Amino acid sequence: MTSTDWLATHRDRLDGALAAIRSRGYFSAFPESPSPRVYGETAAADGKAAFEQHLGQEYVLATPGANGSVVTEQSPFGIELNVEYPRTTESGLDELLAAAQAGLTDWRKAGIDGRTGVTLEILDRLHQRVFELANAVHHTSGQAFVMAFQAGGAHALDRALEAVAYAYEEMSRYPAEALWEKPAKGDPIRMTKNFTVTGRGVALVIGCNTFPTWNSWPGLFASLVTGNAVVVKPHPLAVLPLAITVDVCREVLAEAGLDPNLVTLVAERPDDGLAKPLAQRPEVKLIDFTGGSEFGEWLEQNATQATVFTEKAGVNAVIVDSTDSFKALCNNLAFTLSLYSGQMCTTTQNLFVPAGGIATDDGHKSFEEVGAGIATSIGKLLGDDARAVEILGGIVNQAVVNRLELAAEYGDVVLPSRAITHPAYDDAVVRTPLLVAIDAKDEGVYAKECFGPVSFLVRTADTKESIELFGRTVAEGGAMTAGIYSTDEGVLELARDTALDVGVALSENLTGQVFVNQSAAFSDFHGTGANPAANATYTDGAYVASRFRVIQSRRHA
Amino acid sequence: MTSTDWLATHRDRLDGALAAIRSRGYFSAFPESPSPRVYGETAAADGKAAFEQHLGQEYVLATPGANGSVVTEQSPFGIELNVEYPRTTESGLDELLAAAQAGLTDWRKAGIDGRTGVTLEILDRLHQRVFELANAVHHTSGQAFVMAFQAGGAHALDRALEAVAYAYEEMSRYPAEALWEKPAKGDPIRMTKNFTVTGRGVALVIGCNTFPTWNSWPGLFASLVTGNAVVVKPHPLAVLPLAITVDVCREVLAEAGLDPNLVTLVAERPDDGLAKPLAQRPEVKLIDFTGGSEFGEWLEQNATQATVFTEKAGVNAVIVDSTDSFKALCNNLAFTLSLYSGQMCTTTQNLFVPAGGIATDDGHKSFEEVGAGIATSIGKLLGDDARAVEILGGIVNQAVVNRLELAAEYGDVVLPSRAITHPAYDDAVVRTPLLVAIDAKDEGVYAKECFGPVSFLVRTADTKESIELFGRTVAEGGAMTAGIYSTDEGVLELARDTALDVGVALSENLTGQVFVNQSAAFSDFHGTGANPAANATYTDGAYVASRFRVIQSRRHA
Repeated sequence: MTSTDWLATHRDRLDGALAAIRSRGYFSAFPESPSPRVYGETAAADGKAAFEQHLGQEYVLATPGANGSVVTEQSPFGIELNVEYPRTTESGLDELLAAAQAGLTDWRKAGIDGRTGVTLEILDRLHQRVFELANAVHHTSGQAFVMAFQAGGAHALDRALEAVAYAYEEMSRYPAEALWEKPAKGDPIRMTKNFTVTGRGVALVIGCNTFPTWNSWPGLFASLVTGNAVVVKPHPLAVLPLAITVDVCREVLAEAGLDPNLVTLVAERPDDGLAKPLAQRPEVKLIDFTGGSEFGEWLEQNATQATVFTEKAGVNAVIVDSTDSFKALCNNLAFTLSLYSGQMCTTTQNLFVPAGGIATDDGHKSFEEVGAGIATSIGKLLGDDARAVEILGGIVNQAVVNRLELAAEYGDVVLPSRAITHPAYDDAVVRTPLLVAIDAKDEGVYAKECFGPVSFLVRTADTKESIELFGRTVAEGGAMTAGIYSTDEGVLELARDTALDVGVALSENLTGQVFVNQSAAFSDFHGTGANPAANATYTDGAYVASRFRVIQSRRHA
Repeated sequence: MTSTDWLATHRDRLDGALAAIRSRGYFSAFPESPSPRVYGETAAADGKAAFEQHLGQEYVLATPGANGSVVTEQSPFGIELNVEYPRTTESGLDELLAAAQAGLTDWRKAGIDGRTGVTLEILDRLHQRVFELANAVHHTSGQAFVMAFQAGGAHALDRALEAVAYAYEEMSRYPAEALWEKPAKGDPIRMTKNFTVTGRGVALVIGCNTFPTWNSWPGLFASLVTGNAVVVKPHPLAVLPLAITVDVCREVLAEAGLDPNLVTLVAERPDDGLAKPLAQRPEVKLIDFTGGSEFGEWLEQNATQATVFTEKAGVNAVIVDSTDSFKALCNNLAFTLSLYSGQMCTTTQNLFVPAGGIATDDGHKSFEEVGAGIATSIGKLLGDDARAVEILGGIVNQAVVNRLELAAEYGDVVLPSRAITHPAYDDAVVRTPLLVAIDAKDEGVYAKECFGPVSFLVRTADTKESIELFGRTVAEGGAMTAGIYSTDEGVLELARDTALDVGVALSENLTGQVFVNQSAAFSDFHGTGANPAANATYTDGAYVASRFRVIQSRRHA
């Protein structure tokens, strides 16, 4: 098989993705159900076994310039991982980056079709290992298994394919060759011109702890398919999902006769501090980062030799004004606050509710009754421990536990957080969401991110103030998501205008099986790039267009 | 007329541009010939009269926050300009930027079609004033009149239209509305989604002295049509062309019922130092800059709250290896070196020629004979003063004269620079190109930009070294253009690969009426964004995609 054969093999999948990004209707190329009816009877067990093969072992990956090894992961479910990876330190960067660049010319010469074929084949092979990846994501991020399969596997593959489709379409906007014929006295002047897509150089992807694949793959594959080499630096607590990813990339590149060092993994000890010197290397022209605002802003301000794509922190908000389905509102929000213990960058932190309460289909509900309604729904959703852990997953790291313990002091506890003993893992750290009522004037508390299972019920004078506070907190602190519940078209209009002004996507009156914290690949944009929470979106033209350049040559025809 | 009516009026022009950016074949929407047969018998005289009406007068433009006035321009042809503009200083920026932002919501609501209609109407009215603009460019940049008409008028309008076409196509990639229908047990889940293009905020355009319109319009109109407000800061020596531009923008915006402060002019005294504080204001989200590398790099490194597009300096190169048209080679290069006294960011600075000479259709030519051949062609081209000034134009400012005077010391003068008395303007500063032979080892001299009518004939060991030096100087110093003359397909291939590696466009064997320093709108990219001379190109997807964001809202269908 050659790389362009692979494009032919996966052409239908690419065409489906291309059609979807134009319509932004529903599309999925990778089934989200881990059911044996979809994936086969042995897929789950085989994937689990493949995952377990890694435990306590050295992960054999050739990283140029690496020296020694690291073991840094800890499962939120308490099992021993002890996977060993090659360690990269600052002294290895010269060798690493020279090796990353060595294959760039051949990668350019593979052309748009060749690179797209290779990248689609990589996605296909990752899909073949989706259960292994799901286990790896499950045990590093703390996502419950089904969520890890979906968000960390199938949906992550869809997002990666979406990024590849945008990049393919973007590269294909330019003809490979053009005839330029300018009218002149006598014969026209004729020139032949060639246009070649070239990568920018080395791309750096900095992964996060909570979504090691979902948040890394779009940037990784967008950079790769556009002709760059990619250095992947995982979070020290979530290395395995990206080690498998890099392994698959290198395998496919080598099969295509290309340099496997076009994709490398750099693992480090948490105190090695590799990200900053790596991010400022002149060879690094693209950086994709997901994580805290402090380091994201540092990258934006200091890695100025590169184009930097960041997804940072925000203060996601839902405005509660009125509803014709109070029970459904409570149930919908309960799921949002509970899923993955609120550890999504999209989880709602602030619920703005008028002090005087809201009109509902079940009569007027006071501020306290709104809080009680949501608390009751959470209680029911998580009442059974065995079911609860499949929604909550585990707490990703100790910092989240610490933050949660402090947060009860910030106001009146509407619903306390509860520790749950995981039926399968004795050492798992599992917590239910904390809901705290707080006054509008306490902006100092709720206007900054409190990452984890903590949400604030903010008591406002009225919906007008709710919308104002929503606008101000998002403009200043950023947000990945926002929602509103209202039966009043005027209120919805004002919320839409405010959301557009401050640059955040708005979900209106979600009462069914769609949640404000979830975005569907190919249809919903993730982040906007228009507020401080992120400077880019997954995925659009701006996400891919700067990852390559078009270089021409011309001559008389 | 409303803004969408204007889109209908100019629809054919837009469609032509859209087709051209896809094929990148020949297209022009604005005739480049200033002939009365094209523009009418009185157009030239009327335009000159309109230009002269400005002289010695206050240019009436409302710039919010302005205080007092400035008179800063000096014609390279020595005539008195004395046009007075409102002066903006740092203390006026709060008022300026508040006013710039005031119209943003209405501008967003005008929609893609409305904004495109307004922008196309602005271009059309600028075209109606093209002779006035040409005179303004002529007398501020020093370009000869026909060049000012073309590069500063018709071609600048084409580049602006190209940018608008890319932006329109980019914005149109996203549907305004989508139905998302996900299969589920029972009824599918249905969501209605809306997608709204929103500008980033305030865009800043920093103009240059040599090409006040050509280099400013693409960024200005790309930012405007994508929903941003634009603050235009002209070079203090070239204000009038951009004052007319801003005037026309404001006139059309007001007619459309939009806030004219969406486009403002900020003029300053040369020592006011307004650009730095303005560029770092948090409201400023986009910056387009043309000018020196030092300030361009400062912007890239310090205005990190904005997306920055820069066109800076470079060391443009031509490799001379062999030719089957020696005379045409010499004539072609002579025109390139002479046009606008070599004051184009695209003028060739370094001509790499083997010490042993080259093979030509006219027999072997030694290194000295190559230099003599080019010098002879320049001599013939500029032998008649009256004709010469129509190619050379005037020297744009005293710094160029100073640089030219020093450059004769750098090596052996092959062709001295000559001062010419302009037949029409006694005080005009006119100089012919200086050609200096220099050894390959003197990289310290020729590897940095020597802006103005100075070119180096670099004596290399052989073409292999020429290509190596070309690659290294461009990789390190950047280049807007590069060329090669060779009859050897292997040499051409090596030059092409090297040009791709270092990210510069390559012109091969130009011997007719196409010149390495000229790029044709809609077909040739200007700059690449892939080497230090510029971080963007005119114009491609990357040039427009980051100028707006797409914000969605969604609800159950």
